[in-house]
Amino acid sequence: MELKFTRNDILSMERFYRVHLINSLSGYKSSHLIGTVSPNGVYNLAIFNSVIHIGANPPMMGVLIRPHTIPRHTYENLKRTGTFTINHVPIDRIKDAHQTSAKYDASVSEFEACGFTPQLISGFDSPFVGEASIKIGLTYAEEHLIAANQTILVVGQIEHLYLPQSALAPSGHVDIDQCGSAAVCGLDTYYEGKQIFRLSYARPNEEIREI
Amino acid sequence: MELKFTRNDILSMERFYRVHLINSLSGYKSSHLIGTVSPNGVYNLAIFNSVIHIGANPPMMGVLIRPHTIPRHTYENLKRTGTFTINHVPIDRIKDAHQTSAKYDASVSEFEACGFTPQLISGFDSPFVGEASIKIGLTYAEEHLIAANQTILVVGQIEHLYLPQSALAPSGHVDIDQCGSAAVCGLDTYYEGKQIFRLSYARPNEEIREI
Repeated sequence: MELKFTRNDILSMERFYRVHLINSLSGYKSSHLIGTVSPNGVYNLAIFNSVIHIGANPPMMGVLIRPHTIPRHTYENLKRTGTFTINHVPIDRIKDAHQTSAKYDASVSEFEACGFTPQLISGFDSPFVGEASIKIGLTYAEEHLIAANQTILVVGQIEHLYLPQSALAPSGHVDIDQCGSAAVCGLDTYYEGKQIFRLSYARPNEEIREI
Repeated sequence: MELKFTRNDILSMERFYRVHLINSLSGYKSSHLIGTVSPNGVYNLAIFNSVIHIGANPPMMGVLIRPHTIPRHTYENLKRTGTFTINHVPIDRIKDAHQTSAKYDASVSEFEACGFTPQLISGFDSPFVGEASIKIGLTYAEEHLIAANQTILVVGQIEHLYLPQSALAPSGHVDIDQCGSAAVCGLDTYYEGKQIFRLSYARPNEEIREI
């Protein structure tokens, strides 16, 4: 049976029910760990389900950050240093990655609390996640405040990219199922992906092919 | 073996290689069909891999649209009517959904060309996709121009939501693997998701549980 909800139905839902429902609607998402460093040199690590592709040329990625009405360590740190890292969550470390969402004090490193290894490179302040198969280092480029709910889209420029050679196809496509990257839907439900097919470039009146 | 690329390495890559590589880095994404209506009453349908969750209260979703340097029917239509629909791509119709990305003339309805059924409701201009298990009707709320590459983040307010009752968990979470929704990575590689587990809310010094 198909259910129908209007905006008013949604607005009158119990808060957490609504959070789970509306967060599910965007469907499958990737789960990423974002690494930053605090003014006191503490390596901060936090899980985000809101990383998006912005563009390939120049290479940019974005992340939507919840309203800055309470301390947001990731946001504050990335603004201060101008750098952050985006790291794919490995399927065999999902629970530890999820644990980084706990409200730790700013003096605690989630790398240490959740068992991840900070990996540093010369000339770049923010730590990468040693356990991640795909690791991306970015510099802060711009941000946009969403008026409707005060969330902030942070856009970063890709400066450093690490990935396993075995997952890189001749076309440039990365087989993320081979990388062991996790998928997520909503706030807390994790998935693994199974490739169905890759499809040819679509043109009017031409049949799509598996390639 | 781990490969390393710097920003300059990426900028000097062949164009399509770079497009595939950088588009893969955000990992698993959901694939959605966006429905709009043209000034001449043609039902437009286009696949997007860039739909994101914006917030639950008020309920909002967004979509990142490529630069408006060539005609972008979806963008032009949604600006004109102030409405658009977001519909999950059913796994058994991925090839038809992918085909909507072909550059059809504005006089052609991709619903018709690709075999989808426009579903209309009273008082809402844009068509839903009859074949989709999850269908969302939105009104235009705001937009943000990304300075770095002229892409546009369009934010919409959820007005109407249709989903199968069987997929709605008591928590409000939607089991999208039960909905038969497709996942995608990059531009053209499609996946199905297999649920691993749902995890408890994380708190410092408390063990994460499967729930």
